[in-house]
Amino acid sequence: MTANPLLVISAHAGDFVWRAAGAIALATARGERAKVLCLTYGERGESAKAWRAGKNLDEIKELRRTEAANAAGVLGAEIEFLDAGDYPLQETSELVDRIVHVYREVNPSVVLTHPLTDPYNQDHPAAARMALHARVLAQAVGYDAPGEALGAPPVFFFEPHQPEQCDFKPEVLLDITSVFDTKRKAMECLPAQQHMWDYYTDLAKRRGVQLKRNAGPNLGLPHSTMGEAYMRLYPQVTEVLA
Amino acid sequence: MTANPLLVISAHAGDFVWRAAGAIALATARGERAKVLCLTYGERGESAKAWRAGKNLDEIKELRRTEAANAAGVLGAEIEFLDAGDYPLQETSELVDRIVHVYREVNPSVVLTHPLTDPYNQDHPAAARMALHARVLAQAVGYDAPGEALGAPPVFFFEPHQPEQCDFKPEVLLDITSVFDTKRKAMECLPAQQHMWDYYTDLAKRRGVQLKRNAGPNLGLPHSTMGEAYMRLYPQVTEVLA
Amino acid sequence: MTANPLLVISAHAGDFVWRAAGAIALATARGERAKVLCLTYGERGESAKAWRAGKNLDEIKELRRTEAANAAGVLGAEIEFLDAGDYPLQETSELVDRIVHVYREVNPSVVLTHPLTDPYNQDHPAAARMALHARVLAQAVGYDAPGEALGAPPVFFFEPHQPEQCDFKPEVLLDITSVFDTKRKAMECLPAQQHMWDYYTDLAKRRGVQLKRNAGPNLGLPHSTMGEAYMRLYPQVTEVLA
Amino acid sequence: MTANPLLVISAHAGDFVWRAAGAIALATARGERAKVLCLTYGERGESAKAWRAGKNLDEIKELRRTEAANAAGVLGAEIEFLDAGDYPLQETSELVDRIVHVYREVNPSVVLTHPLTDPYNQDHPAAARMALHARVLAQAVGYDAPGEALGAPPVFFFEPHQPEQCDFKPEVLLDITSVFDTKRKAMECLPAQQHMWDYYTDLAKRRGVQLKRNAGPNLGLPHSTMGEAYMRLYPQVTEVLA
Amino acid sequence: MTANPLLVISAHAGDFVWRAAGAIALATARGERAKVLCLTYGERGESAKAWRAGKNLDEIKELRRTEAANAAGVLGAEIEFLDAGDYPLQETSELVDRIVHVYREVNPSVVLTHPLTDPYNQDHPAAARMALHARVLAQAVGYDAPGEALGAPPVFFFEPHQPEQCDFKPEVLLDITSVFDTKRKAMECLPAQQHMWDYYTDLAKRRGVQLKRNAGPNLGLPHSTMGEAYMRLYPQVTEVLA
Amino acid sequence: MTANPLLVISAHAGDFVWRAAGAIALATARGERAKVLCLTYGERGESAKAWRAGKNLDEIKELRRTEAANAAGVLGAEIEFLDAGDYPLQETSELVDRIVHVYREVNPSVVLTHPLTDPYNQDHPAAARMALHARVLAQAVGYDAPGEALGAPPVFFFEPHQPEQCDFKPEVLLDITSVFDTKRKAMECLPAQQHMWDYYTDLAKRRGVQLKRNAGPNLGLPHSTMGEAYMRLYPQVTEVLA
Repeated sequence: MTANPLLVISAHAGDFVWRAAGAIALATARGERAKVLCLTYGERGESAKAWRAGKNLDEIKELRRTEAANAAGVLGAEIEFLDAGDYPLQETSELVDRIVHVYREVNPSVVLTHPLTDPYNQDHPAAARMALHARVLAQAVGYDAPGEALGAPPVFFFEPHQPEQCDFKPEVLLDITSVFDTKRKAMECLPAQQHMWDYYTDLAKRRGVQLKRNAGPNLGLPHSTMGEAYMRLYPQVTEVLA
Repeated sequence: MTANPLLVISAHAGDFVWRAAGAIALATARGERAKVLCLTYGERGESAKAWRAGKNLDEIKELRRTEAANAAGVLGAEIEFLDAGDYPLQETSELVDRIVHVYREVNPSVVLTHPLTDPYNQDHPAAARMALHARVLAQAVGYDAPGEALGAPPVFFFEPHQPEQCDFKPEVLLDITSVFDTKRKAMECLPAQQHMWDYYTDLAKRRGVQLKRNAGPNLGLPHSTMGEAYMRLYPQVTEVLA
Repeated sequence: MTANPLLVISAHAGDFVWRAAGAIALATARGERAKVLCLTYGERGESAKAWRAGKNLDEIKELRRTEAANAAGVLGAEIEFLDAGDYPLQETSELVDRIVHVYREVNPSVVLTHPLTDPYNQDHPAAARMALHARVLAQAVGYDAPGEALGAPPVFFFEPHQPEQCDFKPEVLLDITSVFDTKRKAMECLPAQQHMWDYYTDLAKRRGVQLKRNAGPNLGLPHSTMGEAYMRLYPQVTEVLA
Repeated sequence: MTANPLLVISAHAGDFVWRAAGAIALATARGERAKVLCLTYGERGESAKAWRAGKNLDEIKELRRTEAANAAGVLGAEIEFLDAGDYPLQETSELVDRIVHVYREVNPSVVLTHPLTDPYNQDHPAAARMALHARVLAQAVGYDAPGEALGAPPVFFFEPHQPEQCDFKPEVLLDITSVFDTKRKAMECLPAQQHMWDYYTDLAKRRGVQLKRNAGPNLGLPHSTMGEAYMRLYPQVTEVLA
Repeated sequence: MTANPLLVISAHAGDFVWRAAGAIALATARGERAKVLCLTYGERGESAKAWRAGKNLDEIKELRRTEAANAAGVLGAEIEFLDAGDYPLQETSELVDRIVHVYREVNPSVVLTHPLTDPYNQDHPAAARMALHARVLAQAVGYDAPGEALGAPPVFFFEPHQPEQCDFKPEVLLDITSVFDTKRKAMECLPAQQHMWDYYTDLAKRRGVQLKRNAGPNLGLPHSTMGEAYMRLYPQVTEVLA
Repeated sequence: MTANPLLVISAHAGDFVWRAAGAIALATARGERAKVLCLTYGERGESAKAWRAGKNLDEIKELRRTEAANAAGVLGAEIEFLDAGDYPLQETSELVDRIVHVYREVNPSVVLTHPLTDPYNQDHPAAARMALHARVLAQAVGYDAPGEALGAPPVFFFEPHQPEQCDFKPEVLLDITSVFDTKRKAMECLPAQQHMWDYYTDLAKRRGVQLKRNAGPNLGLPHSTMGEAYMRLYPQVTEVLA
């Protein structure tokens, strides 16, 4: 059993690639377990190209599953799909319960999910609410699910597509320079959204510039520093201010 | 020259003891330099007992200086007083310039100061504004002061006396259990404010309870965990989400 | 087919009159289509007078329907009622789906609805959440409903009854002077709420005063300028700053 | 019939004791009716000790019911349990309807409930949303439930366990010094959470210190002033500024 | 010496009439002392009509002084002018010191001033900052001014001209029905701003409607209830939740 | 005299190029007057490269003046320098008065300046505060400066370098596609900050993507849409919701 498992909970099949592939690749590069839980395939809301090409629902689900699994493979992460149906992603206690079971099985040290506000996509906050709800339920000894009651893993929100409109303010800038090539390869597993490859490469540069601007003295970060931005839901616990 | 110098900028002589003694003691325990810069002695605004006892202005300044120096000594920190006059602490470019010189001399890795809002004490945000302004000026090559241009040390706001009314929300919970006895001894160097000793001991317990509640799984923190709370002004820069 | 259709989605039968009749009348005066979609008749929550008069549920629904249809007629707008039941207005995916169908049929250029916060009436934010959710679903090629996928029409929140308690801050002040008489006539189609006629006339004056105060130079607005206030959910897109 | 009935709506059996026992005891000491409505027993989410001791669901419910009833007895308050099931507490229109009936029966002058944000416990905001929704429904003449339509009783949010993380800012500091012994006795009716007795005694001291700090001149409050903190949802209505 | 003195600190000569005359009249009707402190006459910023009529600076000051004194007389309040110069009102430690002396002389139980944000008039927040700063200085035993150190009188912000743009949210609705005629007479002492008489009468009606809407049950408020809105800077201290 | 003059007030010589060159070029392309007012040359705070190259203060000022004048020339705008001294830019009533005179001379229809928050550069909010203060003073008939009293031109805040940390949320997305080449040429007049050319080209692309995402239906915007983002200080006044 590896230490410090990472659990990433996303609404659709591709979300984890654009927004958190750097964090995932860093974790697996450190030898830690990383598991991606996709609540849906994004078959209706994020597959416009396939629909326009005339594919049917089952074909699109299969396509998205394969692409996402390939991306997870590149990142060295496990992936599981709950196929809960998107657009809209319905919040139900049954789905929350299934997520509780995943928490109890993985026992994560860190959790990543969507932020709670997104006026462009209601599935994203719905996924986040369920991810957070399930985390609290999984902490209760009295909740009826296998495994030990969860600890209190910190939760990070990854960056949405239109950050300012989602009240997303970078609170943590993660240096992903060492794994950016891997993130790019994972992005390239999603050919239907090719315009996103450059968009998220540009974003990584932008967050890298900010990372250098906010780094303390003497860090000697390279010109090509790449970053991912996150928010925290809970306070940071630490033994050193830095 | 030691690594990672810590610079604490406070409005009055006693502020650093109640609010940041834990962080200071942790730094000096790690062998790092810590310097406290008191802009005033708090001779008018925070010395009611001495005024009621009939002491005059010079006596009160001397009293406060001695007490604060003793507390700094217990914490293993240097201390400097700018004697800028309190209640009100005036914001001037001359005073900001003196603070720039301190930044250039210390070249801190971490800066601690008051938060920017305090409806109970206008000296506190005035000190914070000058501390932040001087930090940015010290970063400019073109600013006329000795020493190298500063890097970008992170800034943490320590906890005010009435946190909720100052929009203070704990973002970082610092585990000060290992140095709490030292903090208590430093507090006891300020005999005029004896009711504060227990008040800030209770607060350390309260923040310790929250620290345990937010710590990730498997940390095994002791029942008697003590904490100090901080806010960040700038995003955290890191290589690991935790 | 007229250009620039306007779609107004409200919880109860009368909401569109008090809060958006000016915008509707301006649109129809320009020759544009305007459609009002009332999710309910407001039969339980906004018909106190009729209940006190001893009318039954069906009578009250019919009464409200007639009044609202008359007001829409005065404004030159179409009106449709979904009769989803108020107090409480339940959020269901079936109701959202019906709203998606309306979006696909109207293909609006502008959407008006309630703001997202109202501690005095939970039906209002429920209607707004469904209106916003349906708008995003209607944009997805993969969503199963007739018609073309929607573009991205801007959304404006009209003014609630207690604006400050609903976090409503006027971001757009619409000059309705030229159609205020029509708005007044539409209001007078709702006799059970006669005290509202003057209340919303006074509000139009108040917003008119603010409109003049914020208008740029040289506009020469008349003393009797009348206004309606709106908030935007999404950024304004423009070719001219003004 | 006593004047000024107080209605306290909480998610779990013990919430009212830690957070509002002072306000309840003050009301009953004035001879006013106080009723506590517990939506659940907190059998899953707040009974870890009993689960670890091997008790079953029915035993735990019975245990919690007895403890909470004892605490209510000490405070001189009525108590009713809806047994709606916790962790998760489901929001349903049936449950809201049951709460409406309680409002119509009690016709409260003041309502206390949880705040709307709590990232540590989703049952708390769910209870608050239902309490607020039911209050508005109970005000409607057209809502089908026995009794007169409700007036507009003010709503106060009591203090959550981690106030700063719940955006809780003390807006009203209630002096509970005269009834603190009663609150302590009520807390001691909940033996499974003994660490909370001191925690909430310390909090009452802390709020008491703030109360004295914010009290106007000449009040002569004793050193041992104890307090409870509340937020308001609606504006205060008054004839005197004080 | 009367109990409960009220101190109103405003930037210009007329501010207290439009925004706080109701609170002042209520205080003097209860036999309490009320003192208005006008930092300036509003000779440049709020006297457009007189400038357009060709009057000079001294004439305008005299005019404004007479009008404001008349209005204060109608309200039964004392009035003092510091003639500090408006547009811009400069923040200086000398002016703050003069305000400290007034605090020490009046020893107010309640303080009224402008809110801290006003993008339409920078003099208003400047006056408020000085009023708040002086209040804290006057509390310090060590501050060199005659009289006893101040207690902690609550501070209320009165309503600005464009409340929503000043982040003004009514937190306290004061029933001024019984003294509204007096307020109207005080307003009529300011003939140059006749359009304001009706504007602030309409506002009083509007706040009265909200007051009734938020009043608890059974209050039996008359149809013609008039109100003034205020915000609090500090938490309310009370022995009864209501 | 041309219609609709644009006034841009910035702290340092280069600010207007990176952040508002698109808006300026659009205005001059429409034949409107545009004037840039630089409060300082940015000689200390934004000229690191020149200081490192050993230039002295006068040389650097001259260098910055020439570059900025060249950029203004490319944009077809007038430029004026107040040489008030940067790092720190001091807020004085004399400087505000000079800005009032510019307002009275230009009589702008639109004003652009920095946002009010910037923890990376205190000169920026200082410039903004003075720009806003001077605008209000210039509106007063009684303010002693030549020219007519100003109307109420809308104010737009241009985008700071680290938008999220400055609480900058795009509220207006301006389509600058047609003038982007001109903006690029203006940027290239500032050779010392060559890394900024690409940075702000990337930002224009990013804002262009968002612009397309938020544009209403049927706009047919090209793939290469470029944008600038702005915030409004005052409500928009309009006759059409769009």
